[in-house]
Amino acid sequence: MNASSFPERPVHPDSTGTEPLSDWRPWERLGELAEAGDAEGLRNFLLSLAAHDQALALSRLDEDHHTAVLTLLSAEEAAELLRHLSETQAAELVDALDTLDAAAIVQEMSSDEQADLLGDLDDDQAESILQAMPAADAASVRELAAYSDDQAGGLLVREILRFNQSSLVHEVITTLSENAEEFRDYDVQYAYLTDDNDKLVGVLPMRNLLFAKRTDPVADIMILDPLSITASMPLDELRDFFDAHHFLGVPVVDDNHKLLGVVHRNAVDYESTRAAESDFLKSQGIIGGEELRTMPLWQRSKRRLSWLSINILLNIGAAGVIAMYQDTLSKVIALAVFLPIISDMSGCSGNQAVAVSMRELSLGLVRPAEMFRVWLQEMSVGLINGTVLGMLVAIVAVIWDGNPYLGLVVGVALCANTLIAVSIGGTVPLLLKRLGFDPAVASGPLLTTVTDMCGFMLVLGLATMLLERLI
Amino acid sequence: MNASSFPERPVHPDSTGTEPLSDWRPWERLGELAEAGDAEGLRNFLLSLAAHDQALALSRLDEDHHTAVLTLLSAEEAAELLRHLSETQAAELVDALDTLDAAAIVQEMSSDEQADLLGDLDDDQAESILQAMPAADAASVRELAAYSDDQAGGLLVREILRFNQSSLVHEVITTLSENAEEFRDYDVQYAYLTDDNDKLVGVLPMRNLLFAKRTDPVADIMILDPLSITASMPLDELRDFFDAHHFLGVPVVDDNHKLLGVVHRNAVDYESTRAAESDFLKSQGIIGGEELRTMPLWQRSKRRLSWLSINILLNIGAAGVIAMYQDTLSKVIALAVFLPIISDMSGCSGNQAVAVSMRELSLGLVRPAEMFRVWLQEMSVGLINGTVLGMLVAIVAVIWDGNPYLGLVVGVALCANTLIAVSIGGTVPLLLKRLGFDPAVASGPLLTTVTDMCGFMLVLGLATMLLERLI
Repeated sequence: MNASSFPERPVHPDSTGTEPLSDWRPWERLGELAEAGDAEGLRNFLLSLAAHDQALALSRLDEDHHTAVLTLLSAEEAAELLRHLSETQAAELVDALDTLDAAAIVQEMSSDEQADLLGDLDDDQAESILQAMPAADAASVRELAAYSDDQAGGLLVREILRFNQSSLVHEVITTLSENAEEFRDYDVQYAYLTDDNDKLVGVLPMRNLLFAKRTDPVADIMILDPLSITASMPLDELRDFFDAHHFLGVPVVDDNHKLLGVVHRNAVDYESTRAAESDFLKSQGIIGGEELRTMPLWQRSKRRLSWLSINILLNIGAAGVIAMYQDTLSKVIALAVFLPIISDMSGCSGNQAVAVSMRELSLGLVRPAEMFRVWLQEMSVGLINGTVLGMLVAIVAVIWDGNPYLGLVVGVALCANTLIAVSIGGTVPLLLKRLGFDPAVASGPLLTTVTDMCGFMLVLGLATMLLERLI
Repeated sequence: MNASSFPERPVHPDSTGTEPLSDWRPWERLGELAEAGDAEGLRNFLLSLAAHDQALALSRLDEDHHTAVLTLLSAEEAAELLRHLSETQAAELVDALDTLDAAAIVQEMSSDEQADLLGDLDDDQAESILQAMPAADAASVRELAAYSDDQAGGLLVREILRFNQSSLVHEVITTLSENAEEFRDYDVQYAYLTDDNDKLVGVLPMRNLLFAKRTDPVADIMILDPLSITASMPLDELRDFFDAHHFLGVPVVDDNHKLLGVVHRNAVDYESTRAAESDFLKSQGIIGGEELRTMPLWQRSKRRLSWLSINILLNIGAAGVIAMYQDTLSKVIALAVFLPIISDMSGCSGNQAVAVSMRELSLGLVRPAEMFRVWLQEMSVGLINGTVLGMLVAIVAVIWDGNPYLGLVVGVALCANTLIAVSIGGTVPLLLKRLGFDPAVASGPLLTTVTDMCGFMLVLGLATMLLERLI
């Protein structure tokens, strides 16, 4: 793979500060060029666009034009173009291609990009692309496909500089010089040295070549017995590793210490950003992969609806509590005004506690087993905030209705339910994590349902007890 | 700065896969060592910990022990330790130090770390640390402090290899060799060449030194007129830049093309992750900086409460709609059961649309001015999902209450309010972005308030119209 095959557009300081004009429609020009089959014009036009404008222009084309754009470019150029897009969008584009065209493009990608892309396609589509690839290449992709995006195996690149430890300095320099174009890639800071069985024995910082005699064996200037990791290392440990070490990459070995490839810091950083963005999407109810509005309607609707359906069932369950207290409610109709306030506000307080727990978990500042500790810390905040909010809503109730007992009921209920909400919100992410569920997906609905039920029960239960004073 | 001053702990594959024991309390040992003033023991113990355990152990110490730990280490070691922590935690630790100790540590940091840390401290604290630093260093920090974390100026490092363009190859190699320890840092892939006025004239890939005659001027093997950016370039353009170019760093110049420093890809990736994490926190109501549960109670409570107070006022406003329809409600008390369902479910649908808009904005797939386009795309999903959810809630209402008109009222109301919610949820982030507000902070409360009001109005307004059929 030659990462620089798609020549880079010069960016001058003054060309980057300008906002795109809102009436500028690069996709129209792109569509015309694709329709005309003008490969040269297409290439030049794409090169003139910033990365986000490439993404925008492609996203606004219809499917036929996608195919035309990707097949007019060389496979190498198409691979480079896909590299600038988000993974979801790249998968959408490749999905529309013929298997053979897709396979040609996939072959031009680095091993980590192949793993990402094939992981985002349907299993059938991925399988037929693999079958259209040379058997050796396909086998190598399959090997890494066993690992997920958040493991070292799913992030490693095989495109690294490898030399046998018996090589001499001048041999390495000659190889570098003869393949300068191929090695123009950015990750050529280290070479990896193996023995005759492909086992990792050393790492050679390229700058050491500057100070070495050309007739020395590279083994003399390598770092012996370097740090390495296994392909199963999960993302959070990789983050830890790169936090603790100033390396740009770390070699990955199998159980026999054979060198599999290298995981670069960039890849770990990129996956970390994706994980954080994905947590945000999941917490807002976008589950099962991100949605782009250019996706088919039924797919967008189905994904959102699967999440909403669960929520409405939980909601109906919680509202069942209100139904149980209909008598009380019909006698003190003012309570109905306050039920949504109690429900919403408890949700807000609980979500704050969820967010802090998720953050502390990801920073390693709390362990999933420390639920009691978190509960105590949430109770102290909950007491203060619950009291303030309770008093606020009580004052509003008294001013509006004139009955101090109504204020007492809604104030006490909101205060108590805030305590419940922060307790659940703080501890549920820890519990879900311990049980192996994704806290970003499940914390919200669980929290809302339980706090709704408790909130309704508190308001209406208290009101039933104080019914004579409220009428 | 020597990034490798804190020697690196060897990590072996088998030492990383084990879960920390939940009864292992590294902070107790750390506290004992700090109390005993055992600098050597403290250093060795910290070195034996993984990065996240360092963070955990430090977070569980009280303030006196923090100071003891940081002052027992050398300033260089303390700077290295802080580098492994989240910025919020690092700022907490430095905040507790004497100004002189803090200044000594800050001087050991790279320029981008200095800018980050001082930005996270109180202005007063930052100012007194700057005054305790040598005037030249302080002036250089102040210059960059004018830029925020999400601009090139706030992310650049000044610690780069600079040579005059008239240097010879062997002079550069000698300098590298003599300062090998200092340059062991990871970002020594390029040297930057300037003219006699410090203007950037070229970039020298270190590997070119391998193939050059030692008596040649470096100007012969440099890349002339390299890409560069200005210190005011915002984060999203930096992301675009590194998407489009396979560089590990890009030189930053001022208006006169003088070389200020280099922004590394790592720094941009790191800030992108922070921005995504921060969006998640803000959307959940953690505003004004992240919260760690080790922060003072009043601070945690105050920050959360400021957000909750705004929400409760908006909530009370929305609930005012219910109060206006008390007559209808008292006649058809069953409606009270469905009000929270309508409010919650519209919130869920709206949040999904918010999340997709935020994502598309960050990917550049939609422009802030394209509100009409987004509205159309949301209406189509909203029609399907609203119809399904409306029918579901209508069926529940009919089964439970037996009155088909109740089903009609709540079903139509939920369907219509889903359309309103996705319309608002999809377009409000674009509008906020256009107006210069942060969509992550303001979208949620705005959405909830408007959809609550509309939902209550729809249910109770329809019920009032059909009152005779409902009683």
